[in-house]
Amino acid sequence: MARLISLIENASPLLRDVMAQLAPLTGRARLIGLTGAPGVGKSTLTSALLAVYRKAGDRVGVLAVDPSSPFSGGALLGDRVRMQEHATDPEVFIRSMANRGRLGGLSWATSQALRVLDVAGCDVIMIETVGVGQAEVEIASTADTTVVLVAPGMGDGVQTAKAGVLEIGDIYVVNKADRDEAQATARELNQMLALGQRRQPGDWRPPIIKTVASRGDGVPELVDALAKHGNWLADTGTLARRRRARARDEVAGIALAGLRERMGDLPGETQLDALADRVAAGELDPYTAADQLSAGLTQT
Amino acid sequence: MARLISLIENASPLLRDVMAQLAPLTGRARLIGLTGAPGVGKSTLTSALLAVYRKAGDRVGVLAVDPSSPFSGGALLGDRVRMQEHATDPEVFIRSMANRGRLGGLSWATSQALRVLDVAGCDVIMIETVGVGQAEVEIASTADTTVVLVAPGMGDGVQTAKAGVLEIGDIYVVNKADRDEAQATARELNQMLALGQRRQPGDWRPPIIKTVASRGDGVPELVDALAKHGNWLADTGTLARRRRARARDEVAGIALAGLRERMGDLPGETQLDALADRVAAGELDPYTAADQLSAGLTQT
Repeated sequence: MARLISLIENASPLLRDVMAQLAPLTGRARLIGLTGAPGVGKSTLTSALLAVYRKAGDRVGVLAVDPSSPFSGGALLGDRVRMQEHATDPEVFIRSMANRGRLGGLSWATSQALRVLDVAGCDVIMIETVGVGQAEVEIASTADTTVVLVAPGMGDGVQTAKAGVLEIGDIYVVNKADRDEAQATARELNQMLALGQRRQPGDWRPPIIKTVASRGDGVPELVDALAKHGNWLADTGTLARRRRARARDEVAGIALAGLRERMGDLPGETQLDALADRVAAGELDPYTAADQLSAGLTQT
Repeated sequence: MARLISLIENASPLLRDVMAQLAPLTGRARLIGLTGAPGVGKSTLTSALLAVYRKAGDRVGVLAVDPSSPFSGGALLGDRVRMQEHATDPEVFIRSMANRGRLGGLSWATSQALRVLDVAGCDVIMIETVGVGQAEVEIASTADTTVVLVAPGMGDGVQTAKAGVLEIGDIYVVNKADRDEAQATARELNQMLALGQRRQPGDWRPPIIKTVASRGDGVPELVDALAKHGNWLADTGTLARRRRARARDEVAGIALAGLRERMGDLPGETQLDALADRVAAGELDPYTAADQLSAGLTQT
């Protein structure tokens, strides 16, 4: 499995055939995304959830993804240390992925790594990301259930909105709930959620759960909410819909990456570099250039 | 101009022709990107720079982009308040853009808005983003010169690395330099920069400048560094290279967005939804599906 993940990280050409063989074996694991700003306690909570699922006999995977760091691996070292107690458990797989190259690359790599953990027999896979940007939001959203963490006293309302995670949570967690401002944070979160969303009857209402992950408080309630959301997903057909949407993004992403690569190899004037030079010189507008590029792609 | 920016925000089909006409008129403005985590003082520094350039008689544009917020506009309200003193100056254009939809969309919208400000005769355009993720890094990088802001006491080394901005700065600013930890932050930054990068002779060495933006300290030094970097860009041909790379990204982005849209309209089995259903069901692997999708696109 470690070798497969390395192939993914290096975008190896070998991967294609391996993944084609793995594809029919996937779809069994329950995918839980955890996201939140640095310092809210994602890793501590992930570790607490991991302990609960292990106690229940589940095989558990953790994929820690850091889209914000151009440094490979190192940036997540702090987080991995916090999960050390599980590192020697043969039924636990912990992997971290940092950003190599472009965004599309990481979201692609995440899907592939999830497939590997899935095929490896994980019952539960937790995807942990630093939730501060659209990229993190997208990666967290590859999960079946997305848990958004906030912590008290991490900035006013404007900053909370900037976290950009108020529209994607299936479950919200106010961690470090033993702090004074916890009640106020939960209230503010509740108000912002009420503001931002219109719900139909039968829709899932994201609960707000207070935890102190470092000593396990609130973790059973979170596990319970996760189970409830899992049932809701299955009962309403939402799980199938989400997985179909995920497959759509994945297929489109692979196809677009392939087309993007071919753009550099087109003949003559339809080649991307040639077009870009003319656009930079102001001789051609980018829309007309894009048309010529697309025409070049679809005629070869 | 306000109407043009609205067309961009709404991705209006009218835009295509307008932009084709504007394209030859662009390329005159100096583009300065400013990025840094929430709370480092980007808006205060932008405002201070704005005052300097205005005093020099320049027409100035400010584009505040917030890729992390799915809320439109509102999230940047706090920042805009800080720039209020310039709001009535007819030679100053301040616009904010929040994230609507997907990433590609925002980076596309940013390029278009830059063109509009450029054609409107801005001598300097500052692009301000919340620098915490790859998206922000990409948007800040659309500038000719990228300024990365940090503030003392905003987390340890691991957190700084997470900011993910240590590879893109042409100039680094330690703002709030009157704080005790400022010296330590500058030193740490210096070490991290030395670690992360290998330079050739003739390469630009990113300076680290200490500022207290709220009272203007260090701002002349920053303006000076910006001018020096501008000269270096021009003298070494780097400016032309960066602008060509930007044109390449823009053209490829527009072409890919068009191809992505057509993926839903292909006939029969090559249609994205049909392929995604088979992938979700495990009947087809995503690579083969992507091949069929590309084949469908290039044959129609």
